[in-house]
Amino acid sequence: ARSYSITLLPGDGIGPEVVAVAKDVLSVAGAKEGVELRFREMLMGGAALDAVGVPLPDETLAAARASDAVLLGAIGGYKWDNNEKHLKPETGLLNIRAGLGVFANLRPATVLPQLVDASTLKKEVAEGVDIMVVRELTGGIVDLRHFSAPPPPPPPDKLQLIFYKRLYPQIDCIARVAFEVARKRGGNLCSVDKANVLEASMLWRKRVTAIASEFPDVELSHMYVDNASMQLVWNPKQFDTIVTNNSYGDILSDEASMITGSIGMLPSASVGESGPGLFEPIHGSAPDIAGQDKANPLATILSAAMLLKYGLGAENAAKRIETAVTETLDSGFRTGDIYSPGTTLVGCKRMGEEVLKAL
Amino acid sequence: ARSYSITLLPGDGIGPEVVAVAKDVLSVAGAKEGVELRFREMLMGGAALDAVGVPLPDETLAAARASDAVLLGAIGGYKWDNNEKHLKPETGLLNIRAGLGVFANLRPATVLPQLVDASTLKKEVAEGVDIMVVRELTGGIVDLRHFSAPPPPPPPDKLQLIFYKRLYPQIDCIARVAFEVARKRGGNLCSVDKANVLEASMLWRKRVTAIASEFPDVELSHMYVDNASMQLVWNPKQFDTIVTNNSYGDILSDEASMITGSIGMLPSASVGESGPGLFEPIHGSAPDIAGQDKANPLATILSAAMLLKYGLGAENAAKRIETAVTETLDSGFRTGDIYSPGTTLVGCKRMGEEVLKAL
Ligand SMILES: CC(C)[C@H](C(=O)O)[C@@H](O)C(=O)O
Ligand SMILES: CC(C)[C@H](C(=O)O)[C@@H](O)C(=O)O
Repeated sequence: ARSYSITLLPGDGIGPEVVAVAKDVLSVAGAKEGVELRFREMLMGGAALDAVGVPLPDETLAAARASDAVLLGAIGGYKWDNNEKHLKPETGLLNIRAGLGVFANLRPATVLPQLVDASTLKKEVAEGVDIMVVRELTGGIVDLRHFSAPPPPPPPDKLQLIFYKRLYPQIDCIARVAFEVARKRGGNLCSVDKANVLEASMLWRKRVTAIASEFPDVELSHMYVDNASMQLVWNPKQFDTIVTNNSYGDILSDEASMITGSIGMLPSASVGESGPGLFEPIHGSAPDIAGQDKANPLATILSAAMLLKYGLGAENAAKRIETAVTETLDSGFRTGDIYSPGTTLVGCKRMGEEVLKAL
Repeated sequence: ARSYSITLLPGDGIGPEVVAVAKDVLSVAGAKEGVELRFREMLMGGAALDAVGVPLPDETLAAARASDAVLLGAIGGYKWDNNEKHLKPETGLLNIRAGLGVFANLRPATVLPQLVDASTLKKEVAEGVDIMVVRELTGGIVDLRHFSAPPPPPPPDKLQLIFYKRLYPQIDCIARVAFEVARKRGGNLCSVDKANVLEASMLWRKRVTAIASEFPDVELSHMYVDNASMQLVWNPKQFDTIVTNNSYGDILSDEASMITGSIGMLPSASVGESGPGLFEPIHGSAPDIAGQDKANPLATILSAAMLLKYGLGAENAAKRIETAVTETLDSGFRTGDIYSPGTTLVGCKRMGEEVLKAL
């Protein structure tokens, strides 16, 4: 039997509840396919700040690096919102992403037929939406670190060049990942940039277009970011796979996720060239409902499925989880965030039990 | 009688058609309130590229600067899409904004009761939406210019500081404009940033919070940009006035405009500390329908109303135009983009005539 080590980072708020449930689901789904999983829980985010004073302890990063995949719950909360930058939970997240070198962030936004009414969009606009946003995760302006002593700033009109130089290798890497993803999906890739204004985007477009020749079976199109944010609202079904930079990806993937109306359902995967990937639900730590057994664990359970598929190459085990989630929804079980009259309201644990039964 | 000079920049695609119609509406509305308007038409965008080889001729900028307000149609088109940066129509737009110093871009997104069905959002989510996005227009990463010889790039980890230094005075200016706007609207201002990650956003939040003390009657809240892009889809009615930076404002204002479902209806105003403001519809040049008398002139007509109100302080004349547009819609006239069964389909010119009649 194949055997893998998984680092669990429960984090803050509802993180521990949803990770506990997803861990059980992972174990059972793995076992059914002869995949043995060993777990080690480590501190991160606000939990780590409270316990040891830093958002990402060295042991946590070391353990994550030494493992085969990392499952994260959620981090952050009002409590730490006014902390200095290096003492923010979010900095722990940025640092583990950088530390693992996971530069490609895959964020599916799928409207499930059972939940189409959860969308604020009209049914005919929302139904059938199935988008994958591939976000560059470790470059661009989101990656810039804390500074201590101010150096003399370079002339503003040279600033764009910095991105230009730094972006070059990043673009090729993320473009290849995105073309691979698109090839396994609908075969359409839409690259989003602001090439009518930004030098860095002009380079982005040039490189993505160049890489396209390696993937003749994928159809590439380009769209400006402001238009993309409109088109997601106007006709989200036009998109298959989207590739874009860190900042635009942050904004557009959240917009796409809200098109589904059920962000408690959405997983994500962050992967690099090699080494362990990082898997986490896209929702936040929801401190207001933490510890009340109200959280929806399905996003973390589906992140566990992505872990099996993209992290360990255990596609069958991943498929088992996805099918079990579908069956659980078909049986009418719903947490509060996706509840509608006529369905059965359950808590976080009970939802986990139902998925386990379906497995 | 007061007398003002207006620079008209018809631009490309449908620009000339909609500006011609809006010009007549401006004249008549002004005349009814004793405001005399003199017009001068100048070249800009692709039209200027074709005629004289640059997207913003010196005479155009000089004429705009010497006038009391500028009305722009639209710029750009496939024809010039692959031009080098300094020969793109968009560069003309960036340069006239910079040349006029119009750092504050006001973008209303209003769902009119007559057009609520045009939204892709469910009626109960869309109806009553009335958002004003105040976008910082001349700073941030969108303002960086073309470079010729590559200088040695500074260390990447110092990059954020550059924004930090340059942003300081910009933030105070745009914040004051936004508080003034919010004060005249619902009294609520939501400042959008990424202060959980970016140094520049932390400064943004600090300065906006400091300026708030000058406006005790306005309620200030803060939201991260990724969350804002979700909330616009989830519950757009929660927003009154939004203030944000150039890049986020570009994306979020277009998202907000598409919430209305009728971007052919939406005007914008760009203003500075003093000097002429720039007024333009938010829609593009729509080259595919150019010259066919199909364009919706209402966004430009409503931009003319903003010109009267924000540019010339002629609030009564502005009100006349707004009322005339409402009446024209109430009478059932619709261009193709907002047509629905049971209404009367008209072209660009005819729509203008109906607004003139209502005036
Ligand atoms: C918390 C923050 C650092 C993070 C990001 O911007 O990457 C989050 O918004 C996300 O999208 O995962
Ligand atoms: C055309 C482009 C330069 C412009 C911008 O980004 O400012 C446009 O998208 C807008 O929003 O007015």
